[in-house]
Amino acid sequence: MPKQIRINAFDMNCVGHIQHGMWTHPRDRSVEYRTLAYWQHLAQVAERGLLDGIFLADILGVYDVYKGGPESAIANAVQIPLNDPLLVVPAMAAVTKHLGFGVTCNLTYEPPYTFARRMSTLDHLTDGRIGWNIVTGYLDSAARGMGFASQPEHDQRYDVADEYMDVVYKLWEASWDDDAVLRDRQAGLYARPEKVRPVRHDGKYYHLDAIHLCEPSPQRTPVLFQAGASTRGRAFAARHAECVFTYSPNKETTRAIVTDLRERAVRNGRAASDILVFAGCAVVVGRTRKEAEEKYAEYRRHASIEGALAHFSASLGVDLGQYALDEPIRYEKNNANNSMLEAITIRSKEPWTLRRIIDRMVLGSRNAPIVGAPDEVADALQSWVEETDIDGFNLSRVVTPEGLEDFVDLVVPVLQERGLFKREYAPGTLREKLFGAGRARLPDTHCAAAVRPRASDRPLVLAAK
Amino acid sequence: MPKQIRINAFDMNCVGHIQHGMWTHPRDRSVEYRTLAYWQHLAQVAERGLLDGIFLADILGVYDVYKGGPESAIANAVQIPLNDPLLVVPAMAAVTKHLGFGVTCNLTYEPPYTFARRMSTLDHLTDGRIGWNIVTGYLDSAARGMGFASQPEHDQRYDVADEYMDVVYKLWEASWDDDAVLRDRQAGLYARPEKVRPVRHDGKYYHLDAIHLCEPSPQRTPVLFQAGASTRGRAFAARHAECVFTYSPNKETTRAIVTDLRERAVRNGRAASDILVFAGCAVVVGRTRKEAEEKYAEYRRHASIEGALAHFSASLGVDLGQYALDEPIRYEKNNANNSMLEAITIRSKEPWTLRRIIDRMVLGSRNAPIVGAPDEVADALQSWVEETDIDGFNLSRVVTPEGLEDFVDLVVPVLQERGLFKREYAPGTLREKLFGAGRARLPDTHCAAAVRPRASDRPLVLAAK
Repeated sequence: MPKQIRINAFDMNCVGHIQHGMWTHPRDRSVEYRTLAYWQHLAQVAERGLLDGIFLADILGVYDVYKGGPESAIANAVQIPLNDPLLVVPAMAAVTKHLGFGVTCNLTYEPPYTFARRMSTLDHLTDGRIGWNIVTGYLDSAARGMGFASQPEHDQRYDVADEYMDVVYKLWEASWDDDAVLRDRQAGLYARPEKVRPVRHDGKYYHLDAIHLCEPSPQRTPVLFQAGASTRGRAFAARHAECVFTYSPNKETTRAIVTDLRERAVRNGRAASDILVFAGCAVVVGRTRKEAEEKYAEYRRHASIEGALAHFSASLGVDLGQYALDEPIRYEKNNANNSMLEAITIRSKEPWTLRRIIDRMVLGSRNAPIVGAPDEVADALQSWVEETDIDGFNLSRVVTPEGLEDFVDLVVPVLQERGLFKREYAPGTLREKLFGAGRARLPDTHCAAAVRPRASDRPLVLAAK
Repeated sequence: MPKQIRINAFDMNCVGHIQHGMWTHPRDRSVEYRTLAYWQHLAQVAERGLLDGIFLADILGVYDVYKGGPESAIANAVQIPLNDPLLVVPAMAAVTKHLGFGVTCNLTYEPPYTFARRMSTLDHLTDGRIGWNIVTGYLDSAARGMGFASQPEHDQRYDVADEYMDVVYKLWEASWDDDAVLRDRQAGLYARPEKVRPVRHDGKYYHLDAIHLCEPSPQRTPVLFQAGASTRGRAFAARHAECVFTYSPNKETTRAIVTDLRERAVRNGRAASDILVFAGCAVVVGRTRKEAEEKYAEYRRHASIEGALAHFSASLGVDLGQYALDEPIRYEKNNANNSMLEAITIRSKEPWTLRRIIDRMVLGSRNAPIVGAPDEVADALQSWVEETDIDGFNLSRVVTPEGLEDFVDLVVPVLQERGLFKREYAPGTLREKLFGAGRARLPDTHCAAAVRPRASDRPLVLAAK
């Protein structure tokens, strides 16, 4: 059987996510992001299409690099305003049964004790359908929102993140034993105190001495997503992540990333297949190629180049607004904030200019969509999977929810006919749906397993590291 | 027209809330707190009964004063395990249209920048039905969960809270003008940048320099609830709160608190009616007195004295487990943690003993319920309102959801017949429902109004205090 393609709807609790300007299309409903009905409809469409999950991005702060201020981002609704992603999940979960939910939370600004409770609560309420996209944030404007002068330095953020993971693993995996909760009405015994223990952690960045507030949820630790592309980010992903997002429009680069990630995972004692890699992509599909191209042309008229530049400037850490159209764009070598620009420039073998960037921003984003009839889109997706060894896609929204409806109605059946996409959901939690029956919890080969109590530990106090 | 009685269902995202042991009753469903269906049913019952809201308590930490450890709390599910209260609100909001939601969040452990976004998101998603119960926490076990050795001292916590309120008021009330968001598809202009401004705050406890992440929600600032009973707590409430909870079983004490709160509000330039006071109470109602008493007798068989003592010991800050039945219970005078015990002892004019406490814990809580036929319960509620000048009740759950269903089916109609309870919801946001049409936002007499930008302030940067 060929490899099953995994597909998430990629979204964000805001108006403009990646394809900027699309909200101005008369059929786009993203301005309704403030309502529960909007999210519930989206979830129902995704579940109708047997998608694996809805993945919600998030960013704290505002894009204020372009032209030295947030004006362009605000005018074009470029991820601002931006509501909290966690709070739409319970409403979507209430109208679905199988769909997974990946939510982005920046650990830098979430105390582990309360954050662990949030995720456990969602795992309970969704009956084990929750995933967490681990991010450490990159915007100085977010740091200022939290009372710091600037972000911690890039690699140090990952050191903090490694310790943070250790703390939340202890809370999720080690505070309550599987057989702690009895709910014995006759005996009047809800849980056995000797099976519940405080987590003690006295590290460099975090201190904790507390019982996890929640009883064990179906997955305990949520499915772990990560998107870091830097060397340090990949080292982190290979240790912690179960699903990794990549966003390169280039197959060779993507294949190299996938190979590297799988090799790193194996070096960490994990299986190469313990990491699922999702490539970001946007699709414009019609019943025929002509219909798709007409739709694409119609969408393009709504693209916001200014919005796309505001977004891309922040991603690059370079104010693209200060350049003339054909002036080479400068960057600092070996500066982590400029690494994306450095990589692009090296790959393209000639200097990047504003004109070249804008030429690619046809749909309000730096990457072009896949456009075509259903079988053409399926061909493109299939070739990506075959040539890069990715496991699936994060499908970013274009005009919404129309784009997801089109994908579900037109592309999913073709993928199913080719045997590349499931015809029904697997039972169980999100982790079981992604990795197979019996795997509701993180496997023993995952680093989190090290914090689990051993039989000899009872009654136990988890030692500080 | 007589004063309309306000009623909230008082609950918590856990098994044992106030009436401990009730979860062992065969008809009690509180062990289903981990499911969305449980909360959605509760919300639908509350809305069927035209209740004003569901109010969710919360506490970080575990009750570990009784017998010097958390064992009794864990065994009896005394507010542990305890899931996050915010995350059940969106699912309840999705199946209701008018019901309000009051959620407890401990500001000590919530960075204002991200917390303000959470509440704005909920206000959007509920279409203006959200309230926030401001608490500063009192458990050392929570402090240890957050990496501190112990709680900040009581009065200092309120100083921190005052500054915190100032920060979140700025985010909610001052960062986006009412006319900032245009959603103009033709012009491609979502919001006008000149109508959006960063909040700058450089205070003793908080530093912030950021645009609020959310566009203005229906209420901007959520309806503000507070429950502090100390002198400092009342000063805080009289300045900030719109709804105040009291929990004294004594009408005289309650009346004194209400009078004091209203006078303090007036001294702050607010109307006496700008604060609604809710008294905590539990009700066991039957179609007849006999039926109610039988039900009460049946419930009592499930009461957990150990659970009630674990809870009450933490509330008192005194380990009741170290006392013999008739030994007077000692406390430190003028110690804020012992103030409840001091007040009880002074009022009762004789020393408290474990026996006297246990004698009162008939339903697994330190306070006895109102028990009777529908008209008797209505009489009791009415007399409380008339004699103490409170505005309504926080109805704590006994056997759930049966208790709420009984109240809605049996007591509400009697209150309606007497003209004491609404026959339909008022339109608009929670604040409008509570305080009248046109009052979706905090009134100008509230201290938050001081942070609102004046016309002359544009383009404006809100000054640090």
